[in-house]
Amino acid sequence: MTETMLERRARLMGPNVPTFYRTPVHIVRGEGVWLWDAGGRRYLDCYNNVAHVGHCHPRVVAALADQAAVLNTHTRYLHDNVLDYIDRLTQHLGHGISQAIMACTGSEANDIALRMAQAVTGKTGIIATDNTYHGNTAATSVLSTRRPPIGGYPSHVRLVPAPDSLRPVGGSREGQAMAFAANVARAIAELEAAGHGFSGMMLCPVFANEGIPAVAPGFLDLTVDVIRKAGGLIIADEVQPGFGRVGSHFWGHDWLGFAPDVVTIGKPMANGHPVSAVLARPDVMAAFREAFGYFNTFGGNPVSAAACLATLDVIEQDGLQAHAATVSAHVMERLRALRHPLLAEVRGAGMFFGAEFVLDDAMSPASAYVTELVETMVARGFLLNRIGRAGNTLKIRPPMPFSVENADTLIDALEAALRETPVMA
Amino acid sequence: MTETMLERRARLMGPNVPTFYRTPVHIVRGEGVWLWDAGGRRYLDCYNNVAHVGHCHPRVVAALADQAAVLNTHTRYLHDNVLDYIDRLTQHLGHGISQAIMACTGSEANDIALRMAQAVTGKTGIIATDNTYHGNTAATSVLSTRRPPIGGYPSHVRLVPAPDSLRPVGGSREGQAMAFAANVARAIAELEAAGHGFSGMMLCPVFANEGIPAVAPGFLDLTVDVIRKAGGLIIADEVQPGFGRVGSHFWGHDWLGFAPDVVTIGKPMANGHPVSAVLARPDVMAAFREAFGYFNTFGGNPVSAAACLATLDVIEQDGLQAHAATVSAHVMERLRALRHPLLAEVRGAGMFFGAEFVLDDAMSPASAYVTELVETMVARGFLLNRIGRAGNTLKIRPPMPFSVENADTLIDALEAALRETPVMA
Repeated sequence: MTETMLERRARLMGPNVPTFYRTPVHIVRGEGVWLWDAGGRRYLDCYNNVAHVGHCHPRVVAALADQAAVLNTHTRYLHDNVLDYIDRLTQHLGHGISQAIMACTGSEANDIALRMAQAVTGKTGIIATDNTYHGNTAATSVLSTRRPPIGGYPSHVRLVPAPDSLRPVGGSREGQAMAFAANVARAIAELEAAGHGFSGMMLCPVFANEGIPAVAPGFLDLTVDVIRKAGGLIIADEVQPGFGRVGSHFWGHDWLGFAPDVVTIGKPMANGHPVSAVLARPDVMAAFREAFGYFNTFGGNPVSAAACLATLDVIEQDGLQAHAATVSAHVMERLRALRHPLLAEVRGAGMFFGAEFVLDDAMSPASAYVTELVETMVARGFLLNRIGRAGNTLKIRPPMPFSVENADTLIDALEAALRETPVMA
Repeated sequence: MTETMLERRARLMGPNVPTFYRTPVHIVRGEGVWLWDAGGRRYLDCYNNVAHVGHCHPRVVAALADQAAVLNTHTRYLHDNVLDYIDRLTQHLGHGISQAIMACTGSEANDIALRMAQAVTGKTGIIATDNTYHGNTAATSVLSTRRPPIGGYPSHVRLVPAPDSLRPVGGSREGQAMAFAANVARAIAELEAAGHGFSGMMLCPVFANEGIPAVAPGFLDLTVDVIRKAGGLIIADEVQPGFGRVGSHFWGHDWLGFAPDVVTIGKPMANGHPVSAVLARPDVMAAFREAFGYFNTFGGNPVSAAACLATLDVIEQDGLQAHAATVSAHVMERLRALRHPLLAEVRGAGMFFGAEFVLDDAMSPASAYVTELVETMVARGFLLNRIGRAGNTLKIRPPMPFSVENADTLIDALEAALRETPVMA
């Protein structure tokens, strides 16, 4: 008997190692928005924000290869690359944010950001939404609701109901922003009563893991007031929306219209090379640096910084943010034209789209249907997935060079799949 | 006024960003055991375990560049590289350890390992030595003694006195192993009395950050008995000793002679590319995977795995472990021949050496002297540093291709520096 790849994975990696799709795909090559499997089959990648400027972008690959051949060492020696990168990246940031710590993963960045809030406030209480993900370290994983930590959720964490388009917090879309802010205020009061105090709130400005609910710019204004008045920090986890994906702005927080104290970035930053950063105002950075004295061996090394610089070059020179806005408008127009008995809402923020399916007027999630739809699309050569509390929202989040033509190909296929995927109760 | 590099760093990275040496070195190029600064000055790198197979090793650079041009995606798709690597690496491991989780930094690996011990035992109490470093995440940083966490050290952590050559735990070198084990037993009892229970102990098998004290194989036997009887796990942090550095063995734990439950690796694994792993027995892995469901976007991607495979190729095919043993014997012979009024002890474990300097018979650390010695050596073109509780141990830990000739060059220079560096009280 030959060992299958899945058996080999189980033998070498153990159980419960996540894969995509009913029959996991064995990908061997990537280029732009395309991926190829081991059988030579081509897939349109509609679901990858890591390969931000397109799979294997030659400019990023060359930057990586060239710098790796010359020098790869850490920031205890001086080097221009890391400084050039922070200098250029922070020019895209407002709100007085001008400094960075470089790390290797979004999880590390958020793990640091939590301690920044502690360092500034001297408190430990932290708030997130109740349907989110901010990382896989011990400290960040307790902000996720996937599996309870051993010993239960720590009492310094409070999770508030996530915004939702179809089942809005507080019962109405109009009142959702106020209800969300009221829940944050209550959580702050609880943290203070419990003796933890309030250090801040961490959130994704497009509420990506929450299912990118249709919230409008200004949604967070009341919440920001509540957080500021309580002396907490606002940490914008820009791992998903950042780097021009939202189209109208370079950052999700500028799209939603609030001023964060700390911004964390990761996945798209160097097109798949393991690098991340925490960006902050000098006063916040100084508080952290004085309390913790952080050093990361790999963080900000010349090779990682070269890959970051090349990725930023491509974003800027290829005008990918404006491109995202253009393609987004086209995709939204086509998504809005879709007709299907279970399709309750389509929504988007730049090159990030959701289509939510429900079974009835009570908005019962059509999770099984979306699962089938995703499988149908994969079988047709389109990689996408589902998101949201019940996994009933189709998630489309392609690499940024995804074109109008790619979008038409995708949505033509989606129309056919919607016709052909049987509706089950 | 032109902004200096240090001013630019302070502006972009904030205060307290660590650098090496009184005048930080601006390195621009590396090759093998050599580094060059921006002025064209060449340095012998005697202090870098990240560039394990030598700076910019062409085979590792080519593997990285070639794979980056073909595909870089995550382990939710299937790919051979990560499986090939775990398969090959675990062949170097005994003790039933046959599975791995890939991550990006040693800190992430140790952060996972702590939760593995929790998952297996259902407890949270953890022990480390009182002069160590196991990472910079919130969960791992509380095992370090550098700066207290906000709110103080958490009560689930107990730090036991680190082994020491000149000031042995328990008062005598002969009794140090027993005294160390007794302290671990007491810490376990404290953790159990406090209600945390005991999940395990994390330690570096060569006690690298403790100053590589002269402990002999078997040193940990009594401690291992204590840990096993209490039901805890032994986590070997092999970030520094692993991958053949100890010379006689591939791993530090096999050199010291104990069977870990979990092994963590990082820095040298891909010669500077950001990658790390947690290696464990299937029963331990399953307990973690069932409790936590870990996924790391960058961890185990095809590019990282290719760089890991190439690094392992070089270690194996160039016989770097045997080379380390050979060079180590020569270096130790030359170090033992050094004569200096403040030099109290030289010691080593493969390609890792310490020379401890004291002021008097009370073993008062000659920290200022070693600081001067390091600066003198840097001025002569040799990069090394100091280690240990008081920083009075000269630390030599070169890339593995460091040759007998390199060693002679270094120690000739060290002899001269010892003659010329004034002894201050």
